[in-house]
Formats: sequence, C-alpha cells, structure tokens
Amino acid sequence: MSNRDYNVESSDKKDAKYAYTFDYDVLHKYMHKAFTPHFKLPGNILELGCYEGRFTERLAKHFNDISCVEASSKSIEVAKIKIPHARFYLNTFEQVQLDKKYENIVMTHVLEHVDDPVAILKRVNDEWLTDDGYFFLVCPNANAPSRQIAVKMGIISHNSAVTAAEEEHGHRITYSLDTLERDATKAGLEVAHRSGIFFKALANFQWDKLLQTDIVSPEYLDGCFKLGQQYPDLCSSIFLLCKKGKR
Amino acid sequence: MSNRDYNVESSDKKDAKYAYTFDYDVLHKYMHKAFTPHFKLPGNILELGCYEGRFTERLAKHFNDISCVEASSKSIEVAKIKIPHARFYLNTFEQVQLDKKYENIVMTHVLEHVDDPVAILKRVNDEWLTDDGYFFLVCPNANAPSRQIAVKMGIISHNSAVTAAEEEHGHRITYSLDTLERDATKAGLEVAHRSGIFFKALANFQWDKLLQTDIVSPEYLDGCFKLGQQYPDLCSSIFLLCKKGKR
Amino acid sequence: MSNRDYNVESSDKKDAKYAYTFDYDVLHKYMHKAFTPHFKLPGNILELGCYEGRFTERLAKHFNDISCVEASSKSIEVAKIKIPHARFYLNTFEQVQLDKKYENIVMTHVLEHVDDPVAILKRVNDEWLTDDGYFFLVCPNANAPSRQIAVKMGIISHNSAVTAAEEEHGHRITYSLDTLERDATKAGLEVAHRSGIFFKALANFQWDKLLQTDIVSPEYLDGCFKLGQQYPDLCSSIFLLCKKGKR
Amino acid sequence: MSNRDYNVESSDKKDAKYAYTFDYDVLHKYMHKAFTPHFKLPGNILELGCYEGRFTERLAKHFNDISCVEASSKSIEVAKIKIPHARFYLNTFEQVQLDKKYENIVMTHVLEHVDDPVAILKRVNDEWLTDDGYFFLVCPNANAPSRQIAVKMGIISHNSAVTAAEEEHGHRITYSLDTLERDATKAGLEVAHRSGIFFKALANFQWDKLLQTDIVSPEYLDGCFKLGQQYPDLCSSIFLLCKKGKR
Repeated sequence: MSNRDYNVESSDKKDAKYAYTFDYDVLHKYMHKAFTPHFKLPGNILELGCYEGRFTERLAKHFNDISCVEASSKSIEVAKIKIPHARFYLNTFEQVQLDKKYENIVMTHVLEHVDDPVAILKRVNDEWLTDDGYFFLVCPNANAPSRQIAVKMGIISHNSAVTAAEEEHGHRITYSLDTLERDATKAGLEVAHRSGIFFKALANFQWDKLLQTDIVSPEYLDGCFKLGQQYPDLCSSIFLLCKKGKR
Repeated sequence: MSNRDYNVESSDKKDAKYAYTFDYDVLHKYMHKAFTPHFKLPGNILELGCYEGRFTERLAKHFNDISCVEASSKSIEVAKIKIPHARFYLNTFEQVQLDKKYENIVMTHVLEHVDDPVAILKRVNDEWLTDDGYFFLVCPNANAPSRQIAVKMGIISHNSAVTAAEEEHGHRITYSLDTLERDATKAGLEVAHRSGIFFKALANFQWDKLLQTDIVSPEYLDGCFKLGQQYPDLCSSIFLLCKKGKR
Repeated sequence: MSNRDYNVESSDKKDAKYAYTFDYDVLHKYMHKAFTPHFKLPGNILELGCYEGRFTERLAKHFNDISCVEASSKSIEVAKIKIPHARFYLNTFEQVQLDKKYENIVMTHVLEHVDDPVAILKRVNDEWLTDDGYFFLVCPNANAPSRQIAVKMGIISHNSAVTAAEEEHGHRITYSLDTLERDATKAGLEVAHRSGIFFKALANFQWDKLLQTDIVSPEYLDGCFKLGQQYPDLCSSIFLLCKKGKR
Repeated sequence: MSNRDYNVESSDKKDAKYAYTFDYDVLHKYMHKAFTPHFKLPGNILELGCYEGRFTERLAKHFNDISCVEASSKSIEVAKIKIPHARFYLNTFEQVQLDKKYENIVMTHVLEHVDDPVAILKRVNDEWLTDDGYFFLVCPNANAPSRQIAVKMGIISHNSAVTAAEEEHGHRITYSLDTLERDATKAGLEVAHRSGIFFKALANFQWDKLLQTDIVSPEYLDGCFKLGQQYPDLCSSIFLLCKKGKR
C-alpha cells in the first residue's frame, strides 16, 4: 500500500477517463436517490473516498456533520472548495484515525481500489459504524449488461476480470453481488438489503456520447433507474445496505 | 362489492387452502424481515386486511399504536385475542372511516382481492398516509418461478392468470411488478423502492410438505430470502415501498 | 377478420413507423442468425406474413423452394420483385389453401396481428408442417427492457399492453414467453426450444437514431445478440422453435 | 496431468458423491432432451469423458457409430457392458489419438476437471470436429440458484469458487456462461447458441432426498427444464452449442 501514488491513480489515462459524465450526472444522481430512503436522520455521515467532492455535495443536502477520508491530496484540495464545512482526513483507510462513530457511512466505487478490502470493511464495522447505523456500499458490477456485452465482444476476458485500464486506475478486483457480500460478511458486517443502481446496457464512453444527443431523455434515465431495482444483477453498480454485525 | 361474503372467501377450499404453513412460517417471517429496515420509528401503523392477526403479531413487536381494517368478522374475532391492544375496524376498505393518519401502512396479499384496487390505493395516498410515511405493499407475484413452472406444466394458463382456486378465494387480478406499480402510480403514490420477497421455485403445497422433512434447513430459507432480493421478479411476492405522491 | 384493410394497417402512421431501420438491419439480421442452426436442410420453406419480402430475401440464401402467404397486395407487389422465384399467396391465413406441407415454416412479428392466433397456429400444426419439420415463431416481447423502461416512464400502461400505435398497426395482443407458449401449446404444437433475439434496452425510434451515430459498432450489436441468448426474457423478440405435436 | 489418478477422483467421497441420482435421472434426461434437436443426423458421435456410460446409453438411441474417450479404466469396464458396440479409448484427452473426425462431439460435466481446458478445446476444434459438425459443451453452472443460495448461506465462498469436495473430485474451475464462452472462443470454436439446462433451486443432495418423496412430479421436472431455457444463467448446467471456428 505504502508505495501507491493516489494522485496518479486518480488522473485520466490515455484510453480511459477516471470519471465520466455518466458517473457524475447519472450514476451519482441515482446512487443519491437510492440512498435517500435509508439515511439515518438526524445523524452524521462519513464518506470513505470522496475524490473531488462531487458526491459529497449531494450528501451535504442532508447532513451538516460530514467527514471525508481521501488519500489523494489533489482531490481534497478540489473537494474542500465545494464543501467547506466538511472535515477532511488526508490519509489512507488503513492509517486514518477517526475520533467518533457515524450513523451513516458511504463508500461508492472505492472498495475495488483497496489492497485489503476485508481489513477496511472490518474497520467500518468495528470502529466507525454506530450500533444502529447504516453502511452504504456501492461497487461497479461485474455483470452489468454493458460489461457482459463487452465480454461477448472479446474486449474484456470475463465478467469479473480487471481490465488493463481498470488496473491503471488502481482497481484490484471487479465485484459482483456474491463476492461483495462475501467480503462484507467476512468483515463482520450484516447485509440488510441487496440492490443495484441503474440498468445499464451501454458502456461509460457510449453513455457520454449519448448524453450529448437527444436520443435519451431524463425520463428514460429515470426508467433505467427504476428498472434497475428489479434487476440488481443487471445494474451499472451493485449496492449493499449493511448494518453493524452482531457478535 | 356489497354482496361479497368475506367470511366465506377467507375459508379453506377443497383443493386450496386460504393460508399455508409456508405463508405463516416462511413468507410472514421474511416480509417482516424485509419491512423492518424501513419502518418509520417511532410511529403508528395501519394494517389493511389483517385476517386472523398472524402478521399483526409480528408488527406488534415494533409498534404500540396499531390499527387494523378487516372485512371478515370471524377473522377479527381470532385476531383480537392475539393483539388485544390493537384497534380493529370491522369494515371494507371502501367504507371504513379512520380518524387519523399513519406513518406506516402495510397491505400484504390483500390488494389482489379488492374490486377496485386503484380506488383503495387512492385512499391510502390521499387520506391515510402521513406526508413522510411509508406504505408497504406486497402481492403474490405472477412471475414466481413456482408459478412459471406451473404454467409450463399447463396447470395455469399464463403467469398473470387468476386460477379457479384463486377466484374462489376472492382474487381479482394477479400482479407482477409492472402492473402493481401501474396501479400504485395511478393512485398517486410514489414508488421509492421495488423489491421481492423469497426466491421461490416450489408451490405452496410443495413447500408445506417440504417443511415437514429435513430436506431444507432454516439457513436454506434465509438463503432464499437473500437471493430473492437479487431477483425480485423471481420471488414468491413482490414488494413496493411507497411514499405519498407529490402534487 | 373480413373487414380488415391490410394495406392500410401495414403503412406508416404519424407517430409510429410500421417497420424501422432497426427491424430491417438489426432484428432481421439476428433472427436470421438465430434460425440458421435449426433450418431443416434440404427442405422447403413457408413464410407466413412476408410483408415486402425483406426477410424473405435472407431466407432465399438457404432455400430455393419458398412460399409466402401475405394479405396485403401492395406488399406482395414489392416482395415479388425481390424474390421472383418465390410462390406468393395473396390471402389471409384463415382462408389460404396450400397444396403441400413444409419442412420449415417461419412467422416473425405476425401472430400478434392475427384475430384468432390459436386457430392459425392450429393450421400450422395440422395442415402445413411436416412430421419432422420446424416452425420458427417470433413475436415482439412484452418484457423487452426498452418496453419495461417505457412502462416505468408511464408511456405504456403495463408490459403486455397493446399501445394505441400498435393497435393502429393491427396488433391484437403483446406476447411474452408464457402467453406465446400457451397459444402454441393450445394449438397442438410442441415447443422444442425457447429463446430470445437481441438484448434490447432502447426503443426502436432510439435505435434508429443511434444507428446513425458512431456510438454503437457492429461488434456491439453482435454482443447484444449473444447476450440475448442468455436472457431470452430481456430480448427485443421472443422465439419459440416448435415441432408438430404428437397426438 | 501425469500424476492424476482418475479412478480415485471418480469415486464417491465421504461428504460428496461423484454422481447423484439427480445427475442420472434428471440432469442426463434433460441434457439429452436439450441436445436432441441439434444432433447432426445421420452422423457419428464422440463422447469426451463417458465415465460409466450412463449418458452414452442415451446417445446410443440416436447413433450407431459411437466413440468414447475416458481416462478411468474402472469406468470404461462398466461402460463397455452397457454399450458393447461403442469404441472406447482408455486415455487422457491430452494424449489420445483419434483416426477420424466427428459430426457430433459431446462433453458434459468434464471440462471443469481438465488441467488445461483451452488446450483440449483446441483439439476438439482443430482435430476432431468436422467442418459442419456440432460440439455440445455442458458444465455445472457457478450461478445455479441452488449454488447462489449456498453462497448466501456461507457454505460456498462465492459463485465461481471450487469447493473442497469439488477439488477432491478433480474440479479445477467452476464455469459460468462468460468464462465458458471465453475458453471456447480462445480455442477457436464458434459459439452458435448459449443455453442452460434445468432451473435448479435445490442442491444435489436435496434433490436426491426430494426425488424419494411425492413432493415433485415428473411434470414438475419437465417444467423446470422448460423454464431453464428462459433463464439459462439460473440453470443447474450451462450449455454452449459450438461449431468449428472459421480461420
């Protein structure tokens, strides 16, 4: 872990951006929508891996007491400007020391970057989550139709492969609902609900082009979100709502 | 509606019971488990169609302030003994007058019995649900694998058919996720989450026999519940978590 | 049946075309690809509802002995030019008299237009199909994701609804795998295989726009076809491969 | 490969049988049913891994010219008695030399045992399959509901894990539709159709007990087979119908 350069990992590469318009405008919007009914309010929130604070801005609509842990200093600089009242920890999840517990913890598209995911999830469960708090865990889905189609095209070896572009951005694993729940459970967390976010048949780069046309409407996007709840395994991302496990 | 005999409809028939061991011991348990993370607490609860109070007993673990509307007098007599502190309205959903609003309203395996479902859902939305309350709506699923298999066997004409036995028990429609959401939306409700309860490949009568053997363990049942959340369309029942719609 | 004007029904309407570029360039291509491994060769073929002969042209690559039944005279005029060696019957499926049996019979996106589908399927089974022939039956799928999304958008009432535009084009029913098999079985046919054609998350009009951009490649389309075989219920069209039923 | 003892691997273990009643009476029956429409007739057939000849017996109903390759001498001894007219090669897939090509090649629940699956599939494609022959490739499915439920129960680590019992029986990998197609394609084969065999919500040992009760009927089993074709990813086994790839 010690020799990872998080500033480099989180920068765009020649063939693959670190974050797409699709991520910001579509996926963030619908993760926010999926989380909202479950937020423990009133309460505080911890975001693990806030990157440049774009999702944090959405969380700030519900929470005053926000803490963020982020290992890239460049990212925190950007994030600070957006959410000045949040508390930022420039540190790795392995090293950071937090002085309180949280009713809400979110970790979106981050766990797949981590060297020892179970160890981090253990810290969430044992140190950071309150007894009746919720942990919102979201990862890209190995079985997203867009990805399955890329596998059929021969571009990606198999659904749960880590592609070269993903590796360059620091991905260590590509989760599906079974492997994500395995790691959450190993860490002692209890999965209260399994779901998925956004039925997705096109790749990020296709979505980014498509969003510049009039082919899809906001209502169509809403429809993909709603349909995604009926087919969690066919979503862009998978979502586990977790509670602190009983010992 | 006027000439329906709810006491007769809710009694067992020669070829099909009104309620199975599977319903009570499996489905009730897992509906309860699926609802729990969403309960608005503290708060009151209204159960529409409590039958003999078996599910009400489970709700009573969370709520003191419980009201039940039920059209069968025989059923209420049984239910009263189980949950003496609940308030019972012996009336139809069409006629009943309630003097307050509820933070939580549950309606499980009832809407498919009703003559004008949209009208009843409208009352839920317009009259009975608080502004930030939740309505827990569960119906048997036309697309349950057990049912799809029966369709392939030629026993049931098509997934959403109402069988003769169902008709005798007062069913008017067999819902799937699309038709249930259609009616909820028509009534003005807003669907916050779509889910399913219990991955189910065997019919009720098969489950009742199976539960008397050692072929399935409680852990296996838990597994079917968990898997069901990943395949809502392949569950025994479908579950919409609804909010009061914005006007 | 007598008073239907098939020339009118098969013309484009203001809001909905009768056939899209998607139909011709994508769906036809992949139906052809899906049928090919099953063709009984050598053998003859009967196409029920050839419209303007666009799919017939693809069949002509495999078969010399081709017969087509079509109720629209305008359509036959166009089709004749394309496949001069085919035999055309200008007639309804109800009235037509054919003087031989066929090893291969195809009916694609036609059964949903017919007044009494079981009666027509009965003629296929009893009169037209050889003892070891194959009947290739394809219909639009009520559960196509594109359609399910439209339902979630509130544009279509429920998955199996017949929309106003579909009604204008003569649709009587919208099939899903359960109802299509029900009608095939009622008619005495035996379903040898159930499949689907083309995983489809966008509507026809969206596809037609998309096909004019560089957002999707031919390889992506191939991927949607391949993935569709793994998710028949999520395909643009559903496909039953039928044999003559045993009596 | 050299030091594997195929007689030992193919014997029952304390906690897991090598073959279950379910395998013989249910899975074999339905694989046979799934293959039949695709058999190239007239033609010869090669079975790779015939074990004790139970599936070979079913193939013998269609084919006179049958060859079997099998590395366990004990198994061949048993198989020989059942299908005396077949030609048996006691050898590994790596070493065996065959003197002709085959119109039909079947390999069921075998590839997951092989040390270098792509190398074996290459021999199928390059040496053994005729130009227009079919290769019937079936493997146990990582995503079978019964297995997914076991994963949720914590008995199996994740869907595609190789369990200890599977390892003892010589399994090297647990395939799903994406990884199986990846290996077939790598070997040069062309996948003509993707399917699944038998919708399966109960484990083998549960099925073996269940088959001794009156809870499930033969018609119910047929229904599970039919439904499986609609949900290939939720089947007991996955099935790729392959052709020789074009070079």
